[in-house]
Amino acid sequence: MSQSNLRAREAGDLFLDSQAGLRIDGARLIDTLERLGEIGADPAGGVTRLGLSPEEDAARTFLGDRYAAAGLEAETDPAGNLFVRRPGTSRGKPVLLVGSHVDTVVQGGRLDGAYGVVAALETLRVLHEHRVELPVEMVVVAFANEEGALVQTPFWGSRMLCGSLDDPLGATDRSGRPVGAHLAATGCAPDRLADVAWPPGSVAAFIELHIEQGPSLERQGVPIGVVEGIVGRTILDVDVTGEAQHAGTTPMADRRDALTAAAEIVLAVRRIAAEDRVCATATTGFVAAAPNVTNTIPGAVRLSVEVRDTDRARQARGEGVVREQCARVAASSGCRIEVTATMRSRPVSTAPFLRGVIRQAADRLGLPHLTMPSGAGHDAQIVARIAPVGMIFVPSRRGISHAPGEDTAPGDLVNGANVLLHTVLAAQAELDRHDSSPG
Amino acid sequence: MSQSNLRAREAGDLFLDSQAGLRIDGARLIDTLERLGEIGADPAGGVTRLGLSPEEDAARTFLGDRYAAAGLEAETDPAGNLFVRRPGTSRGKPVLLVGSHVDTVVQGGRLDGAYGVVAALETLRVLHEHRVELPVEMVVVAFANEEGALVQTPFWGSRMLCGSLDDPLGATDRSGRPVGAHLAATGCAPDRLADVAWPPGSVAAFIELHIEQGPSLERQGVPIGVVEGIVGRTILDVDVTGEAQHAGTTPMADRRDALTAAAEIVLAVRRIAAEDRVCATATTGFVAAAPNVTNTIPGAVRLSVEVRDTDRARQARGEGVVREQCARVAASSGCRIEVTATMRSRPVSTAPFLRGVIRQAADRLGLPHLTMPSGAGHDAQIVARIAPVGMIFVPSRRGISHAPGEDTAPGDLVNGANVLLHTVLAAQAELDRHDSSPG
Repeated sequence: MSQSNLRAREAGDLFLDSQAGLRIDGARLIDTLERLGEIGADPAGGVTRLGLSPEEDAARTFLGDRYAAAGLEAETDPAGNLFVRRPGTSRGKPVLLVGSHVDTVVQGGRLDGAYGVVAALETLRVLHEHRVELPVEMVVVAFANEEGALVQTPFWGSRMLCGSLDDPLGATDRSGRPVGAHLAATGCAPDRLADVAWPPGSVAAFIELHIEQGPSLERQGVPIGVVEGIVGRTILDVDVTGEAQHAGTTPMADRRDALTAAAEIVLAVRRIAAEDRVCATATTGFVAAAPNVTNTIPGAVRLSVEVRDTDRARQARGEGVVREQCARVAASSGCRIEVTATMRSRPVSTAPFLRGVIRQAADRLGLPHLTMPSGAGHDAQIVARIAPVGMIFVPSRRGISHAPGEDTAPGDLVNGANVLLHTVLAAQAELDRHDSSPG
Repeated sequence: MSQSNLRAREAGDLFLDSQAGLRIDGARLIDTLERLGEIGADPAGGVTRLGLSPEEDAARTFLGDRYAAAGLEAETDPAGNLFVRRPGTSRGKPVLLVGSHVDTVVQGGRLDGAYGVVAALETLRVLHEHRVELPVEMVVVAFANEEGALVQTPFWGSRMLCGSLDDPLGATDRSGRPVGAHLAATGCAPDRLADVAWPPGSVAAFIELHIEQGPSLERQGVPIGVVEGIVGRTILDVDVTGEAQHAGTTPMADRRDALTAAAEIVLAVRRIAAEDRVCATATTGFVAAAPNVTNTIPGAVRLSVEVRDTDRARQARGEGVVREQCARVAASSGCRIEVTATMRSRPVSTAPFLRGVIRQAADRLGLPHLTMPSGAGHDAQIVARIAPVGMIFVPSRRGISHAPGEDTAPGDLVNGANVLLHTVLAAQAELDRHDSSPG
């Protein structure tokens, strides 16, 4: 370590010691989350606040107004990303971007995404109230349309910010209505999408706080997860073609039943991860049979299969074994089976120095932590293309997410926000020693 | 055998010998079938001529006009059943009813049902042209809506004739449009449905000629099937309830995956018939999963399972083993599984004396025959409640039915019609020795 680095570290430690007593206003955090959860509350249960819908826009307006009243400045870019800053901060210097998203799936939970945005806003507000000055500018972001539940371009907002969407205006919802119409209807500016991407080097780092959406932290009784990486994911469409025949007149030995062949594949997919441990998870989430009537042997079945792992080789091996198993079933069933990869996303690592900063922050607060992968996708995996990223998890009750039953204990929510606050405080010292290229 | 019976048999044999050279006009049979197949021809393939639709009505009109031109008399009852008779025959005496149906499934074949009706009409026409007098009246019937593809009351016409539909006007199509509206739109008389049922004892016997809809006759190279009975059928709805969870964040060991549980059931259902031979056939034709999206472990799956056998005890045992297997999968998967029987139809036997008549007719024509069950349902199983029934099968190419590829060689079609003609000729002698109660 050089003399100047040593001096910076000492200065950083002195700064952190001076801020050691700083805390989030827990009651305000919980209250804001509850009010936000009313926007898009679904009469059938949970929250339906789809990306690029009027409900997502209403959430942006609610948060912008609430934190403007606390002296912060809110602004929405042409793609629907909400940014909140402290007033008077210079817009030129590298930014410590902190946040997540406020859109949900249909009948999702009130915390997925929203928690990370509100905790970031409360962090910024506490820094503003205590006039804490940082050498980097902290900017809170609520990325638009992370879920892709309405306009089926997940990570829309973060991909637009990173300039990684080739034909953004080509995106549509399931009915074919273009994204431009949704943007225009919610006060955004589809004609200015070219202005959305941030210039290279403008993001010093990105930190995202999120609920785990899985059961591991709760099961192990640990309040803080330090995310080491986000799994890579491969989606395979499996098309099984047999022969649709009469269920009463076709002897069992003469059948080419696409559904029994598909059932063998469904069980093989589970086995790949559950027993053979080829990759972390393997799931068949979608099935459609034709003609799908009681008295006809199914002639065609489509499955959607996905495999995930934080290791790229294991992810590839998972796909390979699914393909082998499909070939085996094709040979034994007499059905034709075609496997098509429709999506492959690479695993993403968080920046090791940011993991260290998060651990440090949790240690300062006396909170146990666990290093773990993220099985779900997050905006952080997109931003990792242009900047080092760090992710913090808090427990999810019973691991439930993307469902009305999604929940986290209030104490865990406040703990997580305090870890975020102290991560932000500590990160700026570390950022002095790292450039802003991907870590 | 009594003296009078002996005399009747001798008279019958003399009669049959005198008619031994009588044959169907094969070219006319094939031509009529081809023209009928144009009514409801589906641009997407096959024939879509749904029961109680304008297309079924057009088929009735076409046949009525065509055979009226040949000197026969056509009449449609208030439920949409078409009857064709020879003129001048007395309407009071027991009837030898012969026929099938002219409706199809969506994109069905041109022979299913239609063949049996046209062959019966050609039989009646030949008898009329040759002025062959029978001691019973032969009446051709085209039962309305056998398939139940539009108004979901299969065997509508035969059930109405037998008086076995409790609330006929309560039937609707999938959109909720009542059967009365469909009847009125096709010139039938929903206000006179009470007149449709035939009085007890009015049907001396019913004979139905049909394509096999399975591969057995073609595989064994036999042109004629003598149906010994129609399978009983039990339909079970199987509802599997697990837990919908995130496919990326839920470890394999923590899952209650409704689709992997359902896949085990699908394979067990096949095994029951294919390997353990508990019943003749066992099929899962329908599957629906929820939420049915790629990144969520399915929380709920519904299957529709059916078992069939000509033996009532084996049919019941098939249902029992499906239920046992569902309980086994529930215990091992942690999913809740509910099994509900939505339909149970009993196996039906054809009348042994009519099987004998059919064999005799085939023998007279030098055509090999095979005694076999019917795996499919037919109007004959309904009429069996009020009269002895007989059924004749001809081969189906590759066993395909309920699909555009349904076909039978022209020679086989003509052979089957000749067996029907000679069965009708021989049946009247036998009917003298049997009463018309169910056999």
